[in-house]
Amino acid sequence: MAEELRVALAGLGTVGSGVIRLIETNRELIAARAGRPIRILAVSARDRIKDRGVDISGFAWEDDMTAMAAREDVDVVVELVGGSDGPALALARGALKAGKNVVTANKAMIAHHGLELAEAAERAGVALKFEAAVAGGVPVIKGLREGAAANRIERIYGILNGTCNYILSTMEDTGRDFADILREAQELGFAETDPTFDIEGVDAAHKLSILAAIAFGTKVDFDAVDTTGISRVRAADIEQAAVLGYVIRLIGMADTVHGPDGICRLFQRVQPCLVHRDHPLASVDGPTNAVVAEGNFSGRLLFQGAGAGDGPTASSVVADLIDIARGDIGKPFSIPAASLEACAPADPGGRTSRAYLRFTVTDRPGVLAEIAAAMRDAGVSIESLIQKGRPEEGGEVLVAMVTHEGPESAVRAALGLLEGSDSLTASPLVMHLIS
Amino acid sequence: MAEELRVALAGLGTVGSGVIRLIETNRELIAARAGRPIRILAVSARDRIKDRGVDISGFAWEDDMTAMAAREDVDVVVELVGGSDGPALALARGALKAGKNVVTANKAMIAHHGLELAEAAERAGVALKFEAAVAGGVPVIKGLREGAAANRIERIYGILNGTCNYILSTMEDTGRDFADILREAQELGFAETDPTFDIEGVDAAHKLSILAAIAFGTKVDFDAVDTTGISRVRAADIEQAAVLGYVIRLIGMADTVHGPDGICRLFQRVQPCLVHRDHPLASVDGPTNAVVAEGNFSGRLLFQGAGAGDGPTASSVVADLIDIARGDIGKPFSIPAASLEACAPADPGGRTSRAYLRFTVTDRPGVLAEIAAAMRDAGVSIESLIQKGRPEEGGEVLVAMVTHEGPESAVRAALGLLEGSDSLTASPLVMHLIS
Repeated sequence: MAEELRVALAGLGTVGSGVIRLIETNRELIAARAGRPIRILAVSARDRIKDRGVDISGFAWEDDMTAMAAREDVDVVVELVGGSDGPALALARGALKAGKNVVTANKAMIAHHGLELAEAAERAGVALKFEAAVAGGVPVIKGLREGAAANRIERIYGILNGTCNYILSTMEDTGRDFADILREAQELGFAETDPTFDIEGVDAAHKLSILAAIAFGTKVDFDAVDTTGISRVRAADIEQAAVLGYVIRLIGMADTVHGPDGICRLFQRVQPCLVHRDHPLASVDGPTNAVVAEGNFSGRLLFQGAGAGDGPTASSVVADLIDIARGDIGKPFSIPAASLEACAPADPGGRTSRAYLRFTVTDRPGVLAEIAAAMRDAGVSIESLIQKGRPEEGGEVLVAMVTHEGPESAVRAALGLLEGSDSLTASPLVMHLIS
Repeated sequence: MAEELRVALAGLGTVGSGVIRLIETNRELIAARAGRPIRILAVSARDRIKDRGVDISGFAWEDDMTAMAAREDVDVVVELVGGSDGPALALARGALKAGKNVVTANKAMIAHHGLELAEAAERAGVALKFEAAVAGGVPVIKGLREGAAANRIERIYGILNGTCNYILSTMEDTGRDFADILREAQELGFAETDPTFDIEGVDAAHKLSILAAIAFGTKVDFDAVDTTGISRVRAADIEQAAVLGYVIRLIGMADTVHGPDGICRLFQRVQPCLVHRDHPLASVDGPTNAVVAEGNFSGRLLFQGAGAGDGPTASSVVADLIDIARGDIGKPFSIPAASLEACAPADPGGRTSRAYLRFTVTDRPGVLAEIAAAMRDAGVSIESLIQKGRPEEGGEVLVAMVTHEGPESAVRAALGLLEGSDSLTASPLVMHLIS
């Protein structure tokens, strides 16, 4: 058997411990499949003596991660420190500069610095792999980079955040409200103590920007993702969606639009959407992730599985190590980093969609007429209207409607007409429909 | 840009024409992703002048496929001739012997001769790739070989035949009977004129045997797949399943069993099953394929998409070509062919399952008591019993039941006790439950 692949592991949180446990548990089959043994040689973390449930006494301990990355005897550095900048980024930069392959689960770092790191990896002729950064244990980066490589990808979309999906599908199952389920999810460990990144869609946006770069050959552009979280979704919205035959899911979606000027623009949006009950994403419950890629020859491909957790994430980290052991270095974003296009953000106003609009209004006569007039004046055609009779907390009433398919700019204009109206007690919630 | 990858294409049916069209349509992005152009150099088929809707005048024509495979200027031979033996096998053998990479969509050939061909490929140091042989456009071979490579696979199962899935899901939607939908599927081109391989489960068994070899590191053993088709499933079964909260799908399933002797045995079965409505496979409708792989770290992974058709199949063929262009040769079955274990078939009698049993009986008193007694005597515990009141055609009555979880050997024994009973008008139909 060929020489072993020697790994330095930085970060010993749940994923780091999971990687150690996986490599230990599946040692023989990994060696058989990789063509050579994969061995962790050195580890580094903030706290040396913390009990992690795994034995790290067999590995060299390094206090200084950057020094570890530069060790002569290391082939691959696994970065599981986290954070878009700081020590994680310093480590990745240092490792690539030292000519080491890098494997990371760090979506924030790749979303913000993926291009720079890919260029460094290509210069050094080493791998930069991040399967674990998107959709946990689901090999969707590989599915896009390689499995669907023959296709022009027309659209990519999916459920990219397990916490949000857990909250939304539990709201659906129980009829309970957002804050209530969030609290429970935190107690169960499905949501962070500070859940902002998850529930406001930032985590999903990180992942979407990475997928979009691979799918469309564009530079990662996290800042351009139009992001709305799920914190404003109410039990009443889920109830209304159900009546219409839909469920609500937080969907990240990206595609490219060729304008009349012939220039390609990139559309990226994270938003709670109404997904039709017959769509494969509608049956994705709990902390599961699922990604749909639509290729011009493959048609619709779906990749689904656990979106987080130490086992699934470790599975993706070690799959990347096996690829490297097999000699598959590849290009991080499928095509050379220098060829990735800088693509301006597309104006969503030009898109044609059906939308669910929900207003919270004061309970008095004439409010509905005011909303309907704004829709008419902006040219928005209403397919169905639901006025909830019974007032919610604080005496406000919910008015929800679904529009016919039409330009998003018209909906935006209608909402503009209603801006500042003292009939509305909060800004309206817009969710697009996916069939 | 590096040298082009030169391809010889044998077989110009719908898939072959699809490959030509794909390589033409997506030429530039394929070259960007593969790192070099992929060019079809020569083609061969039975009939040179047939109109295929693609222009083949730019390719060298070879009457003799085997001579084409041996051309000096060819890097990869794409075999799309079909058939487990005959010209396809001669071509694959010849190409590998001549040191050419081989890409094929031929599930029958890989199921029957995959081991021999993998050994030849490894000897020659070339690729043997067959992504298109399983689940059409869905990159499930790659998902297993690479994406899930870090895992011990505990079970693999899925919907592997689009024709059967189209028939079953249409029976479900319309309440119509098997023969009726089959006829329609044939008219629509979703089923072959001779549909035996599809509806009797042979095609699914081919695919299952290939997946099992990769998942479990065992020699491909198509002959050991316990195969039952869908031709005996009736509208009434689908109706009963629905009442119980299940849908019926043709499922290929494989896992390994360690007996008390410590020896590993391989379980492989293709069978119509009752799939619980909440299971992701239950919402797979029409000619779609979907495969679930359960890894010991990844948990449940699902790969889903179009199971057939020229576009999706071509997508997988060209993905294999891109892999080869990128220098990914790999081992056809993930580990070296010489390391694949010969694994005896597992006795399904040792498995623990819930089963749906359906009897067609004569409409007279005492029949139910006879069946119930056989169940009791064999130790089969019945969870629910459905006697269909209204007689079917020919005056027979359907009696269906679901057993509690128990050994399959007990069900087999109970059916043995009923064998030859003149109360039964046909042999019983057994379908296992998947939750």
